[in-house]
Amino acid sequence: MKRTIMCGQLNSKNIGETVVIQGWVAKTRDLGGVIFIDVRDREGIVQAVANENLDKDSFKVAESLAREYVVQITGEVKPRSSETINKNIPTGEIEVIATNVVLLNKAETPPFEIEADIDTNEQVRLKYRYLDLRRPDMQKNIIMRHKIAKIARDYFDENGFLEIETPMLTKSTPEGARDYLVPSRVNPGHFYALPQSPQLYKQLLMLSGMDRYFQIVRCFRDEDLRADRQPEFTQMDLEMSFVDQDDVISINEGLIARVMKEVAGVEVKTPFVRMPYNVAMQKYGSDKPDTRFGMELVDTSDVFLGSGFKTFSDIVSKVGSSARAICVKGGVDKLSRRDLDALTDFVKIYGAKGMAWINVCEDELKSPIAKFLTKQETDALLSKTEAEVGDTILFVADKNKVVFDSLGALRCELATRLNLIDKSLYNFLWVVDFPLLEYDDTEKRYTAKHHPFTAPNDSDISLMETNPGEVRAKAYDIILNGNELGGGSLRIYNTELQEKMFKLLGFTTDEAWARFGFLMEAFKYGTPPHGGMAYGLDRFAMILAGADSIRDVIAFPKVQTASEVMSNAPNVVDIKQLEELHIKVVE
Amino acid sequence: MKRTIMCGQLNSKNIGETVVIQGWVAKTRDLGGVIFIDVRDREGIVQAVANENLDKDSFKVAESLAREYVVQITGEVKPRSSETINKNIPTGEIEVIATNVVLLNKAETPPFEIEADIDTNEQVRLKYRYLDLRRPDMQKNIIMRHKIAKIARDYFDENGFLEIETPMLTKSTPEGARDYLVPSRVNPGHFYALPQSPQLYKQLLMLSGMDRYFQIVRCFRDEDLRADRQPEFTQMDLEMSFVDQDDVISINEGLIARVMKEVAGVEVKTPFVRMPYNVAMQKYGSDKPDTRFGMELVDTSDVFLGSGFKTFSDIVSKVGSSARAICVKGGVDKLSRRDLDALTDFVKIYGAKGMAWINVCEDELKSPIAKFLTKQETDALLSKTEAEVGDTILFVADKNKVVFDSLGALRCELATRLNLIDKSLYNFLWVVDFPLLEYDDTEKRYTAKHHPFTAPNDSDISLMETNPGEVRAKAYDIILNGNELGGGSLRIYNTELQEKMFKLLGFTTDEAWARFGFLMEAFKYGTPPHGGMAYGLDRFAMILAGADSIRDVIAFPKVQTASEVMSNAPNVVDIKQLEELHIKVVE
Repeated sequence: MKRTIMCGQLNSKNIGETVVIQGWVAKTRDLGGVIFIDVRDREGIVQAVANENLDKDSFKVAESLAREYVVQITGEVKPRSSETINKNIPTGEIEVIATNVVLLNKAETPPFEIEADIDTNEQVRLKYRYLDLRRPDMQKNIIMRHKIAKIARDYFDENGFLEIETPMLTKSTPEGARDYLVPSRVNPGHFYALPQSPQLYKQLLMLSGMDRYFQIVRCFRDEDLRADRQPEFTQMDLEMSFVDQDDVISINEGLIARVMKEVAGVEVKTPFVRMPYNVAMQKYGSDKPDTRFGMELVDTSDVFLGSGFKTFSDIVSKVGSSARAICVKGGVDKLSRRDLDALTDFVKIYGAKGMAWINVCEDELKSPIAKFLTKQETDALLSKTEAEVGDTILFVADKNKVVFDSLGALRCELATRLNLIDKSLYNFLWVVDFPLLEYDDTEKRYTAKHHPFTAPNDSDISLMETNPGEVRAKAYDIILNGNELGGGSLRIYNTELQEKMFKLLGFTTDEAWARFGFLMEAFKYGTPPHGGMAYGLDRFAMILAGADSIRDVIAFPKVQTASEVMSNAPNVVDIKQLEELHIKVVE
Repeated sequence: MKRTIMCGQLNSKNIGETVVIQGWVAKTRDLGGVIFIDVRDREGIVQAVANENLDKDSFKVAESLAREYVVQITGEVKPRSSETINKNIPTGEIEVIATNVVLLNKAETPPFEIEADIDTNEQVRLKYRYLDLRRPDMQKNIIMRHKIAKIARDYFDENGFLEIETPMLTKSTPEGARDYLVPSRVNPGHFYALPQSPQLYKQLLMLSGMDRYFQIVRCFRDEDLRADRQPEFTQMDLEMSFVDQDDVISINEGLIARVMKEVAGVEVKTPFVRMPYNVAMQKYGSDKPDTRFGMELVDTSDVFLGSGFKTFSDIVSKVGSSARAICVKGGVDKLSRRDLDALTDFVKIYGAKGMAWINVCEDELKSPIAKFLTKQETDALLSKTEAEVGDTILFVADKNKVVFDSLGALRCELATRLNLIDKSLYNFLWVVDFPLLEYDDTEKRYTAKHHPFTAPNDSDISLMETNPGEVRAKAYDIILNGNELGGGSLRIYNTELQEKMFKLLGFTTDEAWARFGFLMEAFKYGTPPHGGMAYGLDRFAMILAGADSIRDVIAFPKVQTASEVMSNAPNVVDIKQLEELHIKVVE
């Protein structure tokens, strides 16, 4: 006997049919002579009914069932009586009157309920991941992730991209994040590195004339895990030849629109907003702005400059420092003194030494700093921040980086606390015109903001010698609701420009070749203009699934110690294995 | 200016259009005032023409071009004059009359020709893999591989399979092939293993109710590389719940038929032949028989038993040994004495001590062994092998394993030498009814032929106690033209049967749990009947591409020393990296 339909697919259209379902017992209720069995599979839950008068043997089996037993039930689909219809589930109008109940396998009592929204310690869920994945919300997430990948592959294929697999056992490069290493048995003392990204290989594939490449590919970074990072993660990776920035952006907008429509049922308008990096920083204090709400940053430096509020006026007199504000609508009522103290602690996480505030009340300004300011100055602050009666203005003054980081984070924190975010919005935007370089105060030299193969804007090439910090790059990040989904750039494909870039980074020609010689050598043989992009698939899936953690969209994730709780990986291995690899553990 | 069409897509339908093409210079011919430029991209090669009288600047650029320079050419598509039409290429009826030639990038002279069928050392090709991949035949292979994977994903998706990613950083298991290990920095002295296959995870996914899983996934084996093995290889992996062997076989036949039709343009008939393991061994001496030609093995043991040919009669009197033959049609003319000596050396590779032969000539049998045999015996040999005048019969007598291995290989060797194989055939078949166990002479115990979770045939379960060697498994391999494309099995899902299996393998209950406890624990919580399959994608792609090596269908393969010649991986790493991983190299 074979399954004829999935449990969750049954509905009133099947009334009158004899069906065979297979799945897990979610629940049984014994009403004496009649046993109701909720049977669950990937598609949903349906109610089966075993009636003592209908088939004694089946009834006996039904009596023996417990939660998570695996069963096969044959029966006729009948409408439920009107008072027992369950409108909450798609199968709620029908039930399967069992003529045959077969026990396929028994089950011990699971350590937690197999249902949505359980309140169970994540460690327990991860230890029994195979049961956690049996829960309907986890199944929904895994199905959605499959869909995203499938849609992406269809889209790229339709657009002439080839999915080409690149190696996992690669060469360790001496920069970037920490590599995972793999000792070679055949080459004693030598090591492979697991790839942090297929960057090098995909550029070589453009050189080899593959024209359009993509890959959904595992990448690895041995970093200390922050809350939502995984040592192994999945990248949606692409590269195109003979393109400019508009081409790459437009192909990716097409992908995103398709995914949003088919996975989330949302029509997003393309083209997306393109926001220069500088504007993103000035307005949102972030290169991944969440534009679902306002509360934009306002530069109030000129008001404080020379004012009686010495702390701020000293700061803003320095180059590269500023005093900026955000205006909280209705803050006077919404934010208590205690809240303001908490927010002050919050900005300190981002390096701010403190936070100033002004409550705009009916008759007066309530503020610890108002007494240091003239009427003209406070008027200017109100006007600049467009504050009205009832609003609260929050200020941070410091080096620009600290101001942006702290106010950028503060506005998101406030939006969450004050419930300002319309969760139905999907605000996609591109941040463009990133700086090519950033100055490293410790190393006293410029470093590449993205990587040393990122191309500068054509119009800024002349600045490379005169004012490198002002050179913008042909780099772009795609942002969704304040999350960076991915990023990319056009690459340098001209040897002279590449050498100029290395000079800017402080390399001699010899050093550049020692470090990047392998790619440089390849680039001599006819490199086409090319550029690309990479997405973090885990994060994209997390946002679309409305999950709180990327662990909820990964079948078998690792925890913060980079271990997998279920199988207990990594583990201690046999000494013989290590001997064969010519390594030993150092205590 | 953007590309309007790919070079290889141009044909007479485009006559009159102004097009922009971009690509690599394959060749130039300067006829004085007119320069012909062959431009190549992924889709093909087209001829462009720069005419001094038409545009002086473009002509100047054209004069400067050399092989592999990257160019953009704008021009009008015109028909070639009838005497210059090239019927060998799809674009051969037209040419692009250049009105604008732009040099996008220069190139040094490549170390080998960028064209099909070059006669270049593979090491050189691999060192400059980015140029090797620019050759049309390598591009064809990579495109075909992309297509196979795309069709498989479409097919699995349509059939309700979810592609679910399983971890790459997993736990080392103490059996099977050698693991690649990855030292953990966070857990000193602990190691991850790169997966040899996702077997464990896919079975857990069935337990978690995912119902149908597939994945195209990288796997790793640290083995000494035989000619056509890679340390990292790609597996097309699937698993299904609530199925029997027919279900798995039928879903896979659908996949293969689809791939064959869409990739190779070949209609294959399903269902495929299912050949029991025993029949495959008896007839073809192999569990992956090539049925494109005959020359089946014939058991001649009874003829030699008690005969005057002592060498053979002694052997066949032993249990588990036999004398078998193959009949080479027309062998008398086709095989010289020297050939017969060479074939004798050939079978020795497989452990045979020698090879006997009989040439069936018009009037007599020419053979070193004929004199030891009676007329009745030689008549019996001719009749059994259906040998006719002109044929040669080849014999090997030894333990069955040696006989099968040597004659199985010999018949394939002869088919190649004598050109007996119709290359247009795609003979798919299933080998089924594998033995569940094989007896290990060294360990003096049974071991699992596939793995310890493979289910026995229902009808053979009673034999597990009485005659374990005769128990057949629900295991199946898919064979194409003598190549094993993949294999799989139904799994044990019942704890008692699993314990019985472990007992057969010589484990105590404690040992079984120590070794497989993690999966055994999971299996207690309601395991559905399930089974699956895995294909070697590299080999499948190789056969369909008609390539000689799997290296020709892998973008960046490794050589026999498990190193990648282009990037020089693996390499020596910084001592600091090793310190962080708590390991050191042992000299």
